[in-house]
Amino acid sequence: MNAEIIAVGNEVISGHTINTNASYIARAIEDIGFMMIRHTAIGDCQTDIESVLEEALKRSDFIFVIGGLGPTDDDLTKEVICQAIGQPLIRYECVVEHIKSYFDSSGRTTPENNYKQAYFPKECTLLDNSYGTAPGCILSVENKQIILLPGPPRELIPMVDDKVLPYLRKWQKESCYTIDVQLFGLGESHIAEKIPHLLGSSQTLIVAPYVGKNEVIIRIKSIHDDAKRAKEEAERMKVNITECLGEYIIGYNGSKLEETIMALLAEKNYTIATAESCTGGLVASTLINCSGISSFLAESIVTYSNEAKIKYLGVQEETLSRYGAVSRQVAKEMAEGIKRNAKSKIGLATTGIAGPDGGSVEKPVGLVYLGIALPRETYTYELRLDGTRQEIREKAVRHILYELYKQLV
Amino acid sequence: MNAEIIAVGNEVISGHTINTNASYIARAIEDIGFMMIRHTAIGDCQTDIESVLEEALKRSDFIFVIGGLGPTDDDLTKEVICQAIGQPLIRYECVVEHIKSYFDSSGRTTPENNYKQAYFPKECTLLDNSYGTAPGCILSVENKQIILLPGPPRELIPMVDDKVLPYLRKWQKESCYTIDVQLFGLGESHIAEKIPHLLGSSQTLIVAPYVGKNEVIIRIKSIHDDAKRAKEEAERMKVNITECLGEYIIGYNGSKLEETIMALLAEKNYTIATAESCTGGLVASTLINCSGISSFLAESIVTYSNEAKIKYLGVQEETLSRYGAVSRQVAKEMAEGIKRNAKSKIGLATTGIAGPDGGSVEKPVGLVYLGIALPRETYTYELRLDGTRQEIREKAVRHILYELYKQLV
Repeated sequence: MNAEIIAVGNEVISGHTINTNASYIARAIEDIGFMMIRHTAIGDCQTDIESVLEEALKRSDFIFVIGGLGPTDDDLTKEVICQAIGQPLIRYECVVEHIKSYFDSSGRTTPENNYKQAYFPKECTLLDNSYGTAPGCILSVENKQIILLPGPPRELIPMVDDKVLPYLRKWQKESCYTIDVQLFGLGESHIAEKIPHLLGSSQTLIVAPYVGKNEVIIRIKSIHDDAKRAKEEAERMKVNITECLGEYIIGYNGSKLEETIMALLAEKNYTIATAESCTGGLVASTLINCSGISSFLAESIVTYSNEAKIKYLGVQEETLSRYGAVSRQVAKEMAEGIKRNAKSKIGLATTGIAGPDGGSVEKPVGLVYLGIALPRETYTYELRLDGTRQEIREKAVRHILYELYKQLV
Repeated sequence: MNAEIIAVGNEVISGHTINTNASYIARAIEDIGFMMIRHTAIGDCQTDIESVLEEALKRSDFIFVIGGLGPTDDDLTKEVICQAIGQPLIRYECVVEHIKSYFDSSGRTTPENNYKQAYFPKECTLLDNSYGTAPGCILSVENKQIILLPGPPRELIPMVDDKVLPYLRKWQKESCYTIDVQLFGLGESHIAEKIPHLLGSSQTLIVAPYVGKNEVIIRIKSIHDDAKRAKEEAERMKVNITECLGEYIIGYNGSKLEETIMALLAEKNYTIATAESCTGGLVASTLINCSGISSFLAESIVTYSNEAKIKYLGVQEETLSRYGAVSRQVAKEMAEGIKRNAKSKIGLATTGIAGPDGGSVEKPVGLVYLGIALPRETYTYELRLDGTRQEIREKAVRHILYELYKQLV
């Protein structure tokens, strides 16, 4: 079953909105064994919508058309598609009521132009929108399904999950089983060198590396008529990859490193405390992404200034003046200081130069020291990172979580 | 001048990589007056690359082809395009040297398959890659320009900025002047209701609202033969919009609220300190996005537990037991406590229920209290936010920065 996505909107082709919807839908339908073959984005332009739809109907069984269901005059999708397939638009009173109650519930008056969103093709399956005013709909045209969805991700995502995927499963023929192996500290080229015998495609199995934001992912995808065989084949490959690259693996199937760490803290009954300089709260706020972390996170302090490092962490003035705030020695004293003051089992510390200013020849932008104080000993790490200020800070967070994970596992 | 983008890669159509490059290029070329008319994403598939390129050459003067320049066997872009336009690929020794020195500089050996990246069409303009191994290139085909770029954003973005845009300016005929007006706390429909007379398109001016991640943007775009007239027309519209919607405006042209706040702190010679519960360091780490903040950010503490709120902020035990940690009263004491302890002019505090657990009927998930202690008085705010744990936390940060901005401006 081939599928493709047409995103409609000047805000998409002009680049002001990033087309995250396409990515979300592609991953969702891949999981049920559909084949995504193309994404197209065009402006709010009648002739473009018509011609792209015509081409898509030749190629694909399922066509997702995103956006252009809004209340303003440049929202054309329904009008153009209904004209193309020869169906009139009619006013659905149930949608009128939904729009009214949507605005009522937050104490606002309904803007008049929102009632435009109550018009839909005469023959279609409406898709309720629990998070906005514009419902979606599904149209059948000569065995092809056209699925119209609203543009805002917070409306589209639940509609896809709760309405569209259950509908699509009717057409699902083959079973697809997917495992993502997440790695840190190993580039795509080096993966290709280390496991050339495992990467590649066969009739039933695809194994390929992708570069993610903070990690490299090796995706294993197995397709069989029989769900059990698909699973077995993928699981076998997971074992093979884990044997070859185990030391770099930080998780499977989109697991978050911070959640794995929380589980390890729970298992060992450890508490943790953080003292951050260059990362400025980003280590703490990443850990706090995990619901339930409050039992394990004792304290978190941002000690950006030397004074704060002395006052809250007991870093020695002499260490600061002798080695500088960005040094292995200060990272160590920070980690041990926060562990001592917070009475936690583990103390984490970061100190570095995130830039763009503040670098020197000996201590360039991107130089970051990490401290990890464990119950018995303290480890420090020197990193030389590149990127923007924000990228350097995010990479430093990834590194300290990775090193902590390796210490805990 | 029409332009379009073709992104090549299974990782893009499968949704594992979000096509942020398309958005970046679209915005960059719009600023020099080019018209982006389409984005297409296809897999690593020879026939798809051929057919999309053929169609694009009919429609567009400039075709950006992104990705497929990598070292692995499924990277096909150069090979397929050169075959299509009848140009042989030859080995460029300067690129071989570049690749070697790239790996040498980080003390790694060059993987053999990376040398594939040294082959380019015989007649082309090479685009150096300062951040990776794969250079880009520009090919001229019957008055059309095909621009091949590497997929990783950290390689593509500097190549676009430093090499491609200066090259494209040769073709620039009309001047385009753009102003983004950023708003907070007002939806798209309500903007359309408040300023219907200002929105819309004419020959020379387009004014349209877009929904951004944390804000709504009204984009003003003026196009004239004469650069001065384009600027004047856009600036006039900016004044009109500011007169109508001034209270909602938080900046112009992608300014970051945290940077505006830092400038206001500098102007007033104020220092700031933060005490965060539900946002867990995200307020501090957002402020620390600004280079130079260290002069203004006195201290930042994450006080997730009641004990930490008492120990570091002097919140009264009675207040906690009487009103609960998530309350207006505690937000107030937290803000005043951190201001007092850090000896800063301003104290910020957050306390709330980010979910998914921990909500109740009286205090549901999404309930957040903010405290802003100013030199003379303290303000508190009650928010009822929706979304995931991460979204609730991010929205709370946006709200406290917005409220602080309104107090400072």
